[in-house]
Order: sequence, then structure tokens, then C-alpha cells
Amino acid sequence: MTDDAAVLGDLVLTHDMIAEGVHFLTNDPPEDVAWKLVAVNLSDLAAKGATPLGVLMGYALTGDRAWDAGFVAGLEAVLKQFDVPLLGGDTVSLPAGAPRVFGLTAIGRAPASGAPSRSGAQAGDALFVTGTIGDAGLGLAMAQGTLDGDASLLAAYRRPVPRLVEGQALAGQVHAMMDVSDGLLLDASRMAEASGLAVSIDLDAVPLSPAFRQAKGESRADQIKAATAGDDYQLLFAAAPDAPLPALATPIGRFAAGSGISLFDADGPAPLPERLGYLHA
Amino acid sequence: MTDDAAVLGDLVLTHDMIAEGVHFLTNDPPEDVAWKLVAVNLSDLAAKGATPLGVLMGYALTGDRAWDAGFVAGLEAVLKQFDVPLLGGDTVSLPAGAPRVFGLTAIGRAPASGAPSRSGAQAGDALFVTGTIGDAGLGLAMAQGTLDGDASLLAAYRRPVPRLVEGQALAGQVHAMMDVSDGLLLDASRMAEASGLAVSIDLDAVPLSPAFRQAKGESRADQIKAATAGDDYQLLFAAAPDAPLPALATPIGRFAAGSGISLFDADGPAPLPERLGYLHA
Repeated sequence: MTDDAAVLGDLVLTHDMIAEGVHFLTNDPPEDVAWKLVAVNLSDLAAKGATPLGVLMGYALTGDRAWDAGFVAGLEAVLKQFDVPLLGGDTVSLPAGAPRVFGLTAIGRAPASGAPSRSGAQAGDALFVTGTIGDAGLGLAMAQGTLDGDASLLAAYRRPVPRLVEGQALAGQVHAMMDVSDGLLLDASRMAEASGLAVSIDLDAVPLSPAFRQAKGESRADQIKAATAGDDYQLLFAAAPDAPLPALATPIGRFAAGSGISLFDADGPAPLPERLGYLHA
Repeated sequence: MTDDAAVLGDLVLTHDMIAEGVHFLTNDPPEDVAWKLVAVNLSDLAAKGATPLGVLMGYALTGDRAWDAGFVAGLEAVLKQFDVPLLGGDTVSLPAGAPRVFGLTAIGRAPASGAPSRSGAQAGDALFVTGTIGDAGLGLAMAQGTLDGDASLLAAYRRPVPRLVEGQALAGQVHAMMDVSDGLLLDASRMAEASGLAVSIDLDAVPLSPAFRQAKGESRADQIKAATAGDDYQLLFAAAPDAPLPALATPIGRFAAGSGISLFDADGPAPLPERLGYLHA
């Protein structure tokens, strides 16, 4: 899935496609698949500070009526939760056994201050992130049956909450903003690269939830695991370190002249992990 | 594929999904599949008199690089032809052998006079259609190898031309408008139903191309075949019989109080065919 949106005048548009076996598991509840498809698109709007106007949806049916009914129920639930109308869409029928594929377009109104991009960070800016990081990664492990953890972790993976209110409040205050979809380190490095800057990240500052600490711990390895897992859908933004912030967020790093991403913690510099995030095929 | 678009303020939005084996044939050239996906969405905008602002695209790749490259080439060609920017999109990789699935969202600006709907026909209005009808249906038979006809028929099936200019010119003059995607009779009956009226259609007036006449003929059966084939992507509209029309179109019928669709020709009333059009699964 892309984590960026197009800006067209005062409109923000995003289109994501998800496929069974790639972006969701065959045994994921269909209600949650629908929820997540909508939520990740709304997260793209949130990163632009946009107010959702509606969504259009394309879905491929494969003849499993119970699954399809669950998907529709989940779709109704998520649209109601975030007060977003379904403007239109299309269905196709695929042969039984074909992977399920869904596409969603979300359209929103940009904030009056203009939609922030990922490329506007300034040297000296702090890097902030909303919420906690790494929960969805552990939720995925729970869905795959390889981890026993708190239900909140599974919910973070299956029913992410797009940070619409925070994005709208922050849009006029930040120099750059994007959502964290492919891993904190990977997305932070993308913001630095797009802004023509270097970014250094304090691993000790990466916000971990109590459920994450309980399931994994808070060692450097655990911090790295959280910061390289995908599917967080928090907002990552650059702002002056002393800017008054209209939404809760944690400062986790700093931008400076140069390029690339570097890590440190209380023990000093930390080596970069082999991969900075999670990329779907 | 749906043939309708959502109107949101001064915006018109449409999303169509197409799947291999359902909306296109496995042996259709990938350049043409891309062309048609864009063209049918632009046709939905044309029916609203809208000016395209851009498209967002979702495509599933299946590992066949030559096919994918052809698809991208066709996409570039059709966007250039109709001067429409690609605003964004997403790709997913599916296992080899999975049916190819594509989704497209098109967004346009509604005309100053407002976007016509399909429900505004008035008793006494004439029903008009642009261009010729039935060519794409014969083109499909050619693609399937069951008909030997003129290349223009195959082109009508594989590379339909959305009637954007005509739609923009007509929008302020018509009482109702839609595009003909599932068959002239089926779409005309939908307009009548949406408008709470009856419609009668003169089969002799259904415009057939020279290539159609040469490949099939112009008997009542041939007229019915043309009027029930899909994929025409012409504009169907209701207007006063004596309205000055800013685009070329043929009057083919009349709206009256009542409900349902009826057919006639020079020999008198004609029975309705068993099916009025072509519906994809």
C-alpha cells in the first residue's frame, strides 16, 4: 500500500488496494479486513490534515456469502465510526479460490492552511510521533499464532484508528507530516530524504505501549523491532522542538543538515538494522 | 461495471473495477485493457458533462512483465489522448495465475449548469443517442473469433472513445443523461424507470454503422442485437424533441406517462427480446 496522497487544489485523494495473502491473512475476520481497508486510506488523509468527504470502493466477490456479508458489516461499521459516506463503487465476481482483492479511494478536503507534505522538514526540527509504535507488528504475530499477547495488540493490527482529529489539528503547525505505515525507521528515513536532510532517532524515546512491553520487553532489540514493524498508522511529523502542539505526540528525533538516518540510545550510537521497515510485495 | 457516478458538490467521482475473464479476455492486448479501463470511467464523467481532473489507479501485477509493460504503455496512451493526469494509485502483486484485477477512480469537475442525472426525463421528451450502436458487440465476437468483420468494430470494443466533448456541450441542454454501457434497451429502460416514465423506441432509428450493416445486416433481429449489446459508451439523453442540440445525436424514441419500455418499427409494435442488455457477473 502507498502511504501518500495526491493533492488537487483543495482536495486530497488516495487510492489503496489490498489483496488476500499479501495485505491480509485468509483467516482475518472479514469485518476487520473492511475496517482496515478504510482506516488505512483515512490515515493517508489524516497525514494531510484533511477532512474526509467520502470513499469509493471496488470489491471482488468470490462466492463466499458469509465472508462477503461480514465484509459489508465491517464496512458499514468503519464508515459510521468515522462519519464518512460511501459515494460509490463497483463489484466484480471472481472465480472461487481467486485471491480477494479490494480497492478503495478516499477523498478529503485539505485544511485551510494547506496540506502538509513529507518534504518540508527543516534542519533543527524535532521529529514527533503520535501514539505508540510496534503494537500492530505484535498483533500480526498474534494473528499468525506465533505470539500470545494482549487483545489490544491484535486490535491495533486489525482495527487501526486513523489519526484524523490529530492530523487536522496539527496540519497548520507542522513543517512535514506523513503516516507511519511501513515502519517508523523506514518512514522517518523517507521524510528525511524527501526533505534533503539527515535524521537521528533516539530509540529510548520510541513510545512503547504497556502491552508491547509486557509481550516483548524494552531492550534495544525490542525498540528496534517496534520501530521496524509496519501497520502503525500513527502520524509522524517535523516541527520546531518548542512548537506548541495541539495534539499529543512524542519527540523521538532531530533533523540536521546531511542525509541518511542514524540511531542512538542511552548507551550511545546504535547500528542500523538490516531492514528499516516492512514492505509488502 | 457500474455506469453511474457520484456527485459531490461540484465534483463528479466514479470507480470501476475490471477483472480478467469477466470484463476482458485473457488474450486482449494489455494496451487495450488499460485504454478501456480509463475510457469507461471517463465515459461515466462524460455522462455528467464533467471535465476530467485526473484518475487514481489500482493494479494487481501477476509477474508477467511483458503484459504489465504493455498495460503501462496503454495507460500512458489513453491518459495522453484525453489529457488526464494520473494523480496516484497503488499496485499489489498477486500469485501467477490469479485473475488480473484493476480498479480506477476518475474525478471530474461538474459543469456550471450542474451534472445531469438519469432521472430527469419529462413526458414528451425525445430519447437521443450519440454515435452508432452495436459496434462493440460485434467487436467482442471478433475478439472471440466467432465473427469476421471490419477492424473498426474491434476498435469499438477494445478502444472506446468517451464522449467527453459531447457530454460537456449537452449537459446544460438535456433533462437526463447517462452512458450506454450495458445495452441501449437496458439503459433506456433504466432512464425511464428512474424518471418514472414509459419509453418507446423506434428500432428503425437505432443508428447502425456501415461496418455493422456489412457484418450483420439491418433486419429487425439485427437492430435488436445492436440495441442489446453492451460496451457502446455512447451518450443516451432525454431532451425536448425540438431542442437545439450542440452535439450530433439521433432521436430514437419518446418518453410518455406510464412505465416500462416498448419497441416498434415500420411494421408496427415489436416484441421485447428476452434480455434487454448485457450484464457482467
